[in-house]
Amino acid sequence: MNELVLPNDTNTLGNLMGGRLLHFMDICAAIAAQRHSHRTVVTASVDSVDFRAAVRLGEVVVLEATVTRAFTTSMEVWIEVWAEDNATGERRHCNRAYYTFVAVDQSGRPIPVPPLEPETEAERERFEAAARRRELRLVLAGRL
Amino acid sequence: MNELVLPNDTNTLGNLMGGRLLHFMDICAAIAAQRHSHRTVVTASVDSVDFRAAVRLGEVVVLEATVTRAFTTSMEVWIEVWAEDNATGERRHCNRAYYTFVAVDQSGRPIPVPPLEPETEAERERFEAAARRRELRLVLAGRL
Amino acid sequence: MNELVLPNDTNTLGNLMGGRLLHFMDICAAIAAQRHSHRTVVTASVDSVDFRAAVRLGEVVVLEATVTRAFTTSMEVWIEVWAEDNATGERRHCNRAYYTFVAVDQSGRPIPVPPLEPETEAERERFEAAARRRELRLVLAGRL
Amino acid sequence: MNELVLPNDTNTLGNLMGGRLLHFMDICAAIAAQRHSHRTVVTASVDSVDFRAAVRLGEVVVLEATVTRAFTTSMEVWIEVWAEDNATGERRHCNRAYYTFVAVDQSGRPIPVPPLEPETEAERERFEAAARRRELRLVLAGRL
Amino acid sequence: MNELVLPNDTNTLGNLMGGRLLHFMDICAAIAAQRHSHRTVVTASVDSVDFRAAVRLGEVVVLEATVTRAFTTSMEVWIEVWAEDNATGERRHCNRAYYTFVAVDQSGRPIPVPPLEPETEAERERFEAAARRRELRLVLAGRL
Amino acid sequence: MNELVLPNDTNTLGNLMGGRLLHFMDICAAIAAQRHSHRTVVTASVDSVDFRAAVRLGEVVVLEATVTRAFTTSMEVWIEVWAEDNATGERRHCNRAYYTFVAVDQSGRPIPVPPLEPETEAERERFEAAARRRELRLVLAGRL
Ligand SMILES: CC(C)(COP(=O)(O)OP(=O)(O)OC[C@H]1O[C@@H](n2cnc3c(N)ncnc32)[C@H](O)[C@@H]1OP(=O)(O)O)[C@@H](O)C(=O)NCCC(=O)NCCS
Ligand SMILES: CC(C)(COP(=O)(O)OP(=O)(O)OC[C@H]1O[C@@H](n2cnc3c(N)ncnc32)[C@H](O)[C@@H]1OP(=O)(O)O)[C@@H](O)C(=O)NCCC(=O)NCCS
Ligand SMILES: CC(C)(COP(=O)(O)OP(=O)(O)OC[C@H]1O[C@@H](n2cnc3c(N)ncnc32)[C@H](O)[C@@H]1OP(=O)(O)O)[C@@H](O)C(=O)NCCC(=O)NCCS
Ligand SMILES: CC(C)(COP(=O)(O)OP(=O)(O)OC[C@H]1O[C@@H](n2cnc3c(N)ncnc32)[C@H](O)[C@@H]1OP(=O)(O)O)[C@@H](O)C(=O)NCCC(=O)NCCS
Repeated sequence: MNELVLPNDTNTLGNLMGGRLLHFMDICAAIAAQRHSHRTVVTASVDSVDFRAAVRLGEVVVLEATVTRAFTTSMEVWIEVWAEDNATGERRHCNRAYYTFVAVDQSGRPIPVPPLEPETEAERERFEAAARRRELRLVLAGRL
Repeated sequence: MNELVLPNDTNTLGNLMGGRLLHFMDICAAIAAQRHSHRTVVTASVDSVDFRAAVRLGEVVVLEATVTRAFTTSMEVWIEVWAEDNATGERRHCNRAYYTFVAVDQSGRPIPVPPLEPETEAERERFEAAARRRELRLVLAGRL
Repeated sequence: MNELVLPNDTNTLGNLMGGRLLHFMDICAAIAAQRHSHRTVVTASVDSVDFRAAVRLGEVVVLEATVTRAFTTSMEVWIEVWAEDNATGERRHCNRAYYTFVAVDQSGRPIPVPPLEPETEAERERFEAAARRRELRLVLAGRL
Repeated sequence: MNELVLPNDTNTLGNLMGGRLLHFMDICAAIAAQRHSHRTVVTASVDSVDFRAAVRLGEVVVLEATVTRAFTTSMEVWIEVWAEDNATGERRHCNRAYYTFVAVDQSGRPIPVPPLEPETEAERERFEAAARRRELRLVLAGRL
Repeated sequence: MNELVLPNDTNTLGNLMGGRLLHFMDICAAIAAQRHSHRTVVTASVDSVDFRAAVRLGEVVVLEATVTRAFTTSMEVWIEVWAEDNATGERRHCNRAYYTFVAVDQSGRPIPVPPLEPETEAERERFEAAARRRELRLVLAGRL
Repeated sequence: MNELVLPNDTNTLGNLMGGRLLHFMDICAAIAAQRHSHRTVVTASVDSVDFRAAVRLGEVVVLEATVTRAFTTSMEVWIEVWAEDNATGERRHCNRAYYTFVAVDQSGRPIPVPPLEPETEAERERFEAAARRRELRLVLAGRL
């Protein structure tokens, strides 16, 4: 997903506001979860995000989201974000995050999703680690 | 801060999208940090957030942000979010989060902020804990 | 209610447009009327508003709305608006207005609202005066 | 000026919100004042407005603004608003209002505008009455 | 239809983006087709458009749309666009285009529209030429 | 580029409006032209576009843009658009178009762009045909 940074997305210094980027990331990650589950999905949680690089008005934000693992009704999605300097075409890494989405039916109740089969070595690693991250997340949320 | 949930903020079930709420929270928290520092502030990080309650189209989202502690150039802000049922006026708690902002000068470089003096017992507790949360955050961000 | 003045809210001088402020005021006042009546409300009228102070891009607009009196199906709401200078934190008074809202049912027909009991002396004064303002308003609207 | 009522302009009953209409009216009136003065204009005041007819999602709002009189730096603008029923093409009158704009220079200071010569009988009447309305307005604003 | 060019409509040079103008043109033309047919209309095609003149932030875009001919369920609409220089009031011609709309019922199926009777000589010419443009359009779309 | 269809992008039947899609297409194509030229680009023209498939609220619109040829200061961009059915994941083809962009300097004057070397057979074909399309375009625009 590419997003052009427009004036209303920026602060008075002409930089993208963090909350607007979290909004872009949520939409991009939700599309990935929706594609995996063929369901309406709702955001269940976001792990901590940190913002290392400012993004300027008029730059292109590039977002890439991948479902790393599907649990029963929830899916973990990994998002990475870059900003592109127009003049040089150079991409600098901005941030990364894990969002968790839950597939829901028409009345908003959780509904099972198909499993995800990791294929490459890197996918398998993320898949394994997803279980540990999920545990930590549910503990932090007071659910485990 | 109160925000009315408008159609463009919702998914096809008529519920507020998580990313839009993260955007509201960032603006609300940024205003608190800006009031404390009298400076332009940029979002440095968000701790993990989890979404317990769906918010409906037309409901009012109530956000409350407090600066818990000012470090050298950064401030930790605590935000709580409620949604109000129009028909009963009942407020249900939606979520909470810690955002960190850094005060910056006109060219985006960090600039010192005034200290914050906690007054009540609750404020002092949050103030103390803020140092521990900051440490964890900087470790997670690979900065400590 | 706090609103951050964003680029799209401003004219080419970087000042908040009057119509956008009237829009913020309407939303803020509608929330107050909705909280009092626990009903969907529609704007019936706005008394004259004058704009004394320009508000800059990036400033925070602070709005405070209070229901002054509930009639049969209508409520008068008093709104005051301030703008906050980021650099000094100083608040300057921008304007004030009376909006009238009517509570409606699902098909848009007026429906009675609970009475409002003024408590402090100031509230009682506003409450009394509300009846006189209402009369004037209905005369101006050619309804009395 | 025609405006299509979009989802984000409406409340949960699918009706245009009053504040959004005030925003449309301000833009339409500002364009008229800008055309007369060839200057940036700022809203100085709005006389009382009442909302007689609900406007539905998907309807077209028709706005017509005319400068009725130019004073030294200020101009009075008369706006009328209709909504068009798509199925019948019928226009119903929604409301009317007087907005006052002041022409300003690059630093926001009032600057003289050219006089307006009323031509028809109706224009002359509005022109004459404009002086009386202005007086009332300045008294209400505590300026006379 | 008049539209004020707002910050979010512009690129980093402060000029209206072409796509945003195509969006304004579509809305303006759709209103004309809706008025002719008293039906919901959907955009079927746009003929080639070229952009000769840049439009600045804060300028007023003036759009004029006319239905040139009604076929069975479709209508051809002619749109012309001007931009107004605020300081001089001068209008420069920006572009023109033909959009085709189809009237549809509640389930989105095409539904017949009333014929259009050209009256002036100019209208008759556009009416005649509309048939030729339609043929070309359907050939280009691979439908004839 | 993926775009989620939000309420404000749709008409009263809940379908994406044609003008909003033209707006998405322009942004997507502009990003491609900007990436090729490392310059600010402005839309010079759009060839005719036809809309074959309705796109629903909540669906994901997928856009793919490729620069087919760079001339002196202008570039032709080819865009294809699909809509994704959430429930089945099926993509249906919506439309395609050629947009032409011109690279400009800070004062909006055309500035040369690097040539594009087609590599695959398909790219070479588009590259060759681009010259013919350009000729037709400039004739239609009255420039040749
Ligand atoms: C945040 C930012 C200003 C820090 O700049 P820096 O050059 O790393 O500066 P420093 O190392 O001196 O750190 C400055 C402060 O930020 C804090 N900080 C940096 N990263 C942090 C993180 N991930 N979480 C919390 N605080 C962080 C530091 O602890 C330090 O705080 P202190 O002065 O109170 O001790 C810089 O990374 C930046 O501009 N990020 C982008 C901000 C932005 O645009 N956000 C929106 C993106 S869409
Ligand atoms: C997310 C939600 C559907 C969970 O519903 P619930 O009744 O608690 O359901 P369950 O306990 O059965 O949990 C369902 C799944 O959510 C997961 N989940 C719940 N809270 C979570 C959290 N904080 N982090 C990660 N996953 C979480 C559970 O682990 C479970 O996953 P699994 O089925 O794969 O094992 C519910 O809390 C909700 O509707 N939240 C609001 C969602 C929303 O509207 N987001 C935007 C707000 S602005
Ligand atoms: C309107 C404004 C420019 C007037 O400035 P000022 O320093 O008071 O100037 P003056 O006293 O010389 O008045 C200038 C003109 O405004 C008119 N004016 C001032 N207040 C007015 C009111 N409430 N209603 C109608 N006209 C008013 C005066 O009558 C005078 O008109 P004239 O020159 O035609 O005789 C100033 O108050 C201002 O900038 N207000 C904010 C405008 C704005 O930003 N609006 C949007 C807010 S969100
Ligand atoms: C496009 C524009 C820069 C061309 O400027 P110009 O002074 O006519 O410049 P030139 O005649 O040197 O043409 C420059 C290039 O544009 C191309 N061009 C001009 N009109 C064109 C059209 N209708 N279709 C395709 N290409 C066109 C020319 O072929 C030339 O390309 P080349 O250098 O690759 O050979 C100018 O017309 C402009 O600024 N238009 C407005 C752009 C804009 O703001 N778009 C959004 C409007 S809302």
